[in-house]
Amino acid sequence: MRTVSARTVAQLLGPEPLTRPAYRSLAAAMRRLVSDGRILVGTRLPSERALMSELGLSRTTVVGALDVLREEGFIVTRRGSGSVAALPEDGSGLALSGAGLVPTDVPPDVIDLTYAVLPAAAGLTGAYERALEHLPRHLSTAGYHPRGLPELRQALADWYESRGLPTDPGDVLITSGAHAALSAVLRAALDPGDRVLLETPTYPNAIVGVRRSGLRPVPFPIDPLGWDPGRLELALRQGGARMAYLVPDFQNPTGRLMSGDERVQVSEVLRRTRVTPIIDETFVELGLDVSPPGPFAASSPAAVTLGSTGKAFWGGLRVGWVRAPHPLVAPILEARHSLDLGTAVLEQLVLTELLRAGPELLEERRAEARRRRDAMMAALRTHVPEWSFAVPPGGLNLWCELPVDRGDALSRVAESAGVRLARGTQFGTDGGMDRFVRIPFSVPADETDEVGRRLADAWRLALGSRSTREPATPLIA
Amino acid sequence: MRTVSARTVAQLLGPEPLTRPAYRSLAAAMRRLVSDGRILVGTRLPSERALMSELGLSRTTVVGALDVLREEGFIVTRRGSGSVAALPEDGSGLALSGAGLVPTDVPPDVIDLTYAVLPAAAGLTGAYERALEHLPRHLSTAGYHPRGLPELRQALADWYESRGLPTDPGDVLITSGAHAALSAVLRAALDPGDRVLLETPTYPNAIVGVRRSGLRPVPFPIDPLGWDPGRLELALRQGGARMAYLVPDFQNPTGRLMSGDERVQVSEVLRRTRVTPIIDETFVELGLDVSPPGPFAASSPAAVTLGSTGKAFWGGLRVGWVRAPHPLVAPILEARHSLDLGTAVLEQLVLTELLRAGPELLEERRAEARRRRDAMMAALRTHVPEWSFAVPPGGLNLWCELPVDRGDALSRVAESAGVRLARGTQFGTDGGMDRFVRIPFSVPADETDEVGRRLADAWRLALGSRSTREPATPLIA
Repeated sequence: MRTVSARTVAQLLGPEPLTRPAYRSLAAAMRRLVSDGRILVGTRLPSERALMSELGLSRTTVVGALDVLREEGFIVTRRGSGSVAALPEDGSGLALSGAGLVPTDVPPDVIDLTYAVLPAAAGLTGAYERALEHLPRHLSTAGYHPRGLPELRQALADWYESRGLPTDPGDVLITSGAHAALSAVLRAALDPGDRVLLETPTYPNAIVGVRRSGLRPVPFPIDPLGWDPGRLELALRQGGARMAYLVPDFQNPTGRLMSGDERVQVSEVLRRTRVTPIIDETFVELGLDVSPPGPFAASSPAAVTLGSTGKAFWGGLRVGWVRAPHPLVAPILEARHSLDLGTAVLEQLVLTELLRAGPELLEERRAEARRRRDAMMAALRTHVPEWSFAVPPGGLNLWCELPVDRGDALSRVAESAGVRLARGTQFGTDGGMDRFVRIPFSVPADETDEVGRRLADAWRLALGSRSTREPATPLIA
Repeated sequence: MRTVSARTVAQLLGPEPLTRPAYRSLAAAMRRLVSDGRILVGTRLPSERALMSELGLSRTTVVGALDVLREEGFIVTRRGSGSVAALPEDGSGLALSGAGLVPTDVPPDVIDLTYAVLPAAAGLTGAYERALEHLPRHLSTAGYHPRGLPELRQALADWYESRGLPTDPGDVLITSGAHAALSAVLRAALDPGDRVLLETPTYPNAIVGVRRSGLRPVPFPIDPLGWDPGRLELALRQGGARMAYLVPDFQNPTGRLMSGDERVQVSEVLRRTRVTPIIDETFVELGLDVSPPGPFAASSPAAVTLGSTGKAFWGGLRVGWVRAPHPLVAPILEARHSLDLGTAVLEQLVLTELLRAGPELLEERRAEARRRRDAMMAALRTHVPEWSFAVPPGGLNLWCELPVDRGDALSRVAESAGVRLARGTQFGTDGGMDRFVRIPFSVPADETDEVGRRLADAWRLALGSRSTREPATPLIA
C-alpha cells in the first residue's frame, strides 16, 4: 500500500500559515492535496501523532481536520490500515480522470486550447516535395517496411549519436507516431494487469494508453517536488511497477526539465528496482530557454526512448520511432506488427528530409513557440492574475494553478466564454488535479490577449457556478 | 465442445477409394483432415458406430484406423468425452501456427513469395502530386484528425453508396490501414478472453492480431465446403464467439468469393447468434474474373467493414478505414485513439485523389493481377503438376494443395532453392494446414517460369527430407 510520510505532508502543505479555526484550515489544505493528486487516492496517511509532531499542531487541530475530511469523504478509515486518502463517492465537482484528449470539431467562434500543438513548421512543404522526388524508386517495391526505411533508421541513429548516444540503426523502429510506439512497447514488454509508473500530472493519452492496454497505472507525483529519487523508489517498490513512463525533456503538462543530476539519480533508482524506463522525447526539440542535458538513455542503457514529429514539426505528419535496448527490439517489432503493419513510405521520406534540414527549421520553430509562450504568459498575468504558473523552460504548455479547486468547473463553462479547455483532472491517474488547468501556447501571439479575456470570463463563470467543495469564505487566504 | 458429425467426416473424406490395408488408408486420410485443419484440434470425433454406418466400412477398418491415429497422437481419447482430434505432442513436422507475416530482408538472389502484394498502381505518383497541392491549407492547422479528414470520409461514404450501401460519413473512421482498424475494433468491442471466430485458413496477421489482443480464436473451416451456414452456426454456438472476422470478397488465402446467397444466409446466422461480423474488404477491388455481389454489410446492418489501400493501390500507402454501425463508432474512435492518434494528412489526401481517379487505375491493376495469376498458374502446372489449386476468381493468391503433408518442410527448404514461402500452417488457428502452401502471384508474369522452376526444386528437396508423417509409400494413390 502507498504511504505518505508526515514530513512529506508538511513539505506539500508548505509554509502557508493556517487561518482560524485551525482544524478547518488544515482540513481545507489537506483536501486540496488530495483533490490535486499531490496525495494520491489510496495513499495511507501518517498517524495523528506523526502529523502533530511534524506540523507542530495540537491534537485537537489534527484530529478535528481528519474528522472533517472523513465526513466529506476525502479520507476513509479502515480498521488496521489507518486513514487512507479518497475522493467523495458522489464525485460531485471532481471529474474522474481516464478520458484522453480526442480532438473534436469546435464551433468556429471557439478557440481550442485542448492541444499542445503548433501549425506546421515553415519549410515543411519543401521537405514533402523533396520526399516526393525519392518516391518513384519505392513504388516498384511492395512498400512494406515493418522496421522502417533503412535510410531513416540510419538518419535517426546519427541524430542520437550527435546528441551523445551512440545508436545502432538496427535498434531503431519506425512507427506511426510516439503514441503508436508506446502502444507497441506496452504490448511487447508487459502482461495484462502489470503496473506502469506514470508521472502525475502526465499526458492524458498516456494514461488512457496504459489503461486500455489492460495495465494499471502507478502514480508518481512530480509536482512540486520534481523527480525526487527517494519518492520515486518508494512509489516503484510499493506500486510494483515493471515499467515507468517518464517525460524528462519538458514534461507534459508541467514543462519541467529533468536536470542532469536527476537523470543520473532516477536512472540509478530504476536500475536498482529493475524497472524499465519508457522515455517520451516528444518535446525534446522544444527547449525554449535551455537545451536538455542529453538523452536520458545515455545514463540508462535499459531505457526505451520514444520520439515523434508531431510536436517538433507538425501533428499532421504521423511518424514516430522507438529506440530500444537490443533484446527488446524483436518483441517490440512483433507487437507493433500485431497492431499496425507499417508506416507510410512517404511520411518516412519526409522525416528523412527533415532530419537533414532539421537544425534551421527547429531554430525557427523554437523562436515561434517562445513568442507564443511569452505572449500567453503576459495575457494570463493581465487577465487572470490570480492564476499562478512556473515559466516552462520548454514544451508547449503552461500548467496553471488556480487559487481554488474549480478546474473542472472552469473547463465545463469555458466554451460558453469562447474557449475550449482540457480538464486538469484528465492529467491525473486517480482523479484530483482539480486546482489546475493546462493552457497550451498554441495560438498566435496576436491572439493571446483575446484568449486571456475569454479565460477571465470563463473563470468568473466558474467561480459563480455552484461550488460543491469550497465553503463561501476560503479558509486559507 | 466442438464436434464433427459422421456425415461431415464423410463429406470431408470425399469419394476417394481406400487402398489396402483399408484401416491404414482411412487413418492416413483422417490424419490429413486433422493436420490440414479441416477437422480442428479439439473437435470430438463421431462414434465408431456412426463412422461405420456413414462410411459404409467394417468395424475392423474403423477401429483399426482410430487405433493408428491414437498411437500417432492425432486422436486423444478421454473417458466420457470420446475421441478428440489432436496434434502429436512432439510437434514434429507440424509447425505451430501463430506467427504473423513479418517482412524481413531476403537475400538478393531469393524471390520473396511471402506477401500477397503488387508494386504501386500506375498513376500513383500523380495522386501524390495532386495531394501535395492540397496540403498547404492543412499546414496552418494542428493536423490532428482522429476521425479522418471530412472530405475523405465523404468520398468513402459516396463509394459505399455507389456499391449499394448508403453510408453516413459520420460512420466512417480513417485508420492507418485495415489491420490498424482491426486492432481498434477488437479493443473497442471486446474484453480480454472473449472469442472471435476466424475462417480457417485465414490471414495469419489477423490470427496474431486477435491473439495479441488477449482474445481467443474460434476456428471455422471454410475449405472445401465454403461458408456453410449450418457449420457456421454450430461453430458460433459451440465456440461462444462474440465477433466473427470474415473475408468474403476474395478470401485470404483461398481466393474464394462468398456468393450473394451465402451472404444472406451467413448474415442471418450471425444475426440469430448475435455475433457481430467484422468484414475485411481489403481485396474487394481485385475481382479478376467476377465482381463481388455487393457489400456484405448491405445484408448485415450490424457488420463492421474494414477497408485498405494496401492491396488495391500500394502497400507503402498506409491508409485504411472502418465503416461501423452508428453505436459502435464512438467506442471504435476511442479505442483507436488509445492506440495511435491519427493518420497522416498527406496519405489521406492521396486516398481522396485515388477515389476520384479510382476506376481507371483499378481496371489496369486488375488486368496486371490477371496476367500475373495466369502466368503463375501456367508455371505451377508445368513445374509442379502434382500440386492442385482452384482458380481464384479474385485476390492475389493461389492456395495450393500438396499431394502429401510436406508444406512446412517445403517452406523450410524453399530458400535454398531461391524462393521464400509462408508456411501453410501459419494460415490455421490451431496448427494443421501442413498440406497447403500459399503462392501469391506477386511476381511479374515474365518471372513466373523461374519461380515455377525454383518451386519444383524446393518440392524435390522437401520430399527428399526426412518425413515424420508419411510412410514411404503413400497409402492413397
